[in-house]
Amino acid sequence: MELLKEKILKEGRVLSDSVLKVDSFLNHQIDPLLMKEIGDEFANRYSDEVITKVLTIESSGIAPATMLGLTIGAPVVFARKRKSLTLADNLYSASVHSFTKNETNEISVSKDYLCEDDNVLIVDDFLANGEAVKGLLDIAEQAGAHVIGVGIVIEKGFQQGGQQLREQGIRIESLANIKSLTNGKVEFFD
Amino acid sequence: MELLKEKILKEGRVLSDSVLKVDSFLNHQIDPLLMKEIGDEFANRYSDEVITKVLTIESSGIAPATMLGLTIGAPVVFARKRKSLTLADNLYSASVHSFTKNETNEISVSKDYLCEDDNVLIVDDFLANGEAVKGLLDIAEQAGAHVIGVGIVIEKGFQQGGQQLREQGIRIESLANIKSLTNGKVEFFD
Repeated sequence: MELLKEKILKEGRVLSDSVLKVDSFLNHQIDPLLMKEIGDEFANRYSDEVITKVLTIESSGIAPATMLGLTIGAPVVFARKRKSLTLADNLYSASVHSFTKNETNEISVSKDYLCEDDNVLIVDDFLANGEAVKGLLDIAEQAGAHVIGVGIVIEKGFQQGGQQLREQGIRIESLANIKSLTNGKVEFFD
Repeated sequence: MELLKEKILKEGRVLSDSVLKVDSFLNHQIDPLLMKEIGDEFANRYSDEVITKVLTIESSGIAPATMLGLTIGAPVVFARKRKSLTLADNLYSASVHSFTKNETNEISVSKDYLCEDDNVLIVDDFLANGEAVKGLLDIAEQAGAHVIGVGIVIEKGFQQGGQQLREQGIRIESLANIKSLTNGKVEFFD
């Protein structure tokens, strides 16, 4: 997705050979018009499928997932990272380790909002080691839902998550796939 | 906002005299079409003002805030509840106590995304005791930004936050204002 790649080149900040900061439009400040374009692009890439539910994880997945939901007219469910007092025991749960934040969270989705009749598209902001996506796949499996595929805004293609998931036969559509962050420079695949 | 009130009456679950659960369309599962209507309504109510930035707090504020941002073409900034490793020291911070979750969080916004030139509209999902809004007002004040007002999806008008803030001269637009949750029944003001 050229618009996204241009935005990454213009505003992304390479903090190390593995860390790209895109806080100006995705992870802290959000560019809603770009998010709408991203939602439209996910819808376009999966236009051969019927999606009944978009599944993401708080917080940075919510904006792109909700824009996809708006485009296709499907509800969005975001997995929570901690149990809250107003969410009852009726949960699917999985453990997710974040290497960026160096912490492990229990993520959970209410059984009320994911079921075996659902055709699920998983959406997230980044794919690196694939921990978050694996957690969401685990939750979808517990629900008996069918996972159509995964939509990722930015894949760090130099890390192993995407390859591992594709080898398991999971369809992944990444809108920008990064080959390298070496020497402070962003290089994309293709 | 009639559409929202109907949705609350149809899908909201009253858990006690003070707790209303709207996980089916706002706090866990998100109805993107309703969120777009909510964004349009906020834009309409504040159409007399020029908004340069929408300020909200993760996670449930993100969807309505981003839809408002889409409607008016302004960026959205969401305050984070914990510092992450990819957010540097360059932060405005405030303490926010959540009575629902019974925990106090440090919320923070990067100094890169809020400044004295900004005309800010604060958006959040719920207003009860007003703790989150007060924290966001504190952050906006630290930045020297001008706060136009506050847009709330659901106000619990029987709690004190809204009244306290209005007495301080802050404009608050609530799309649904709840008078009472007594006996398991939702009653609105008006």
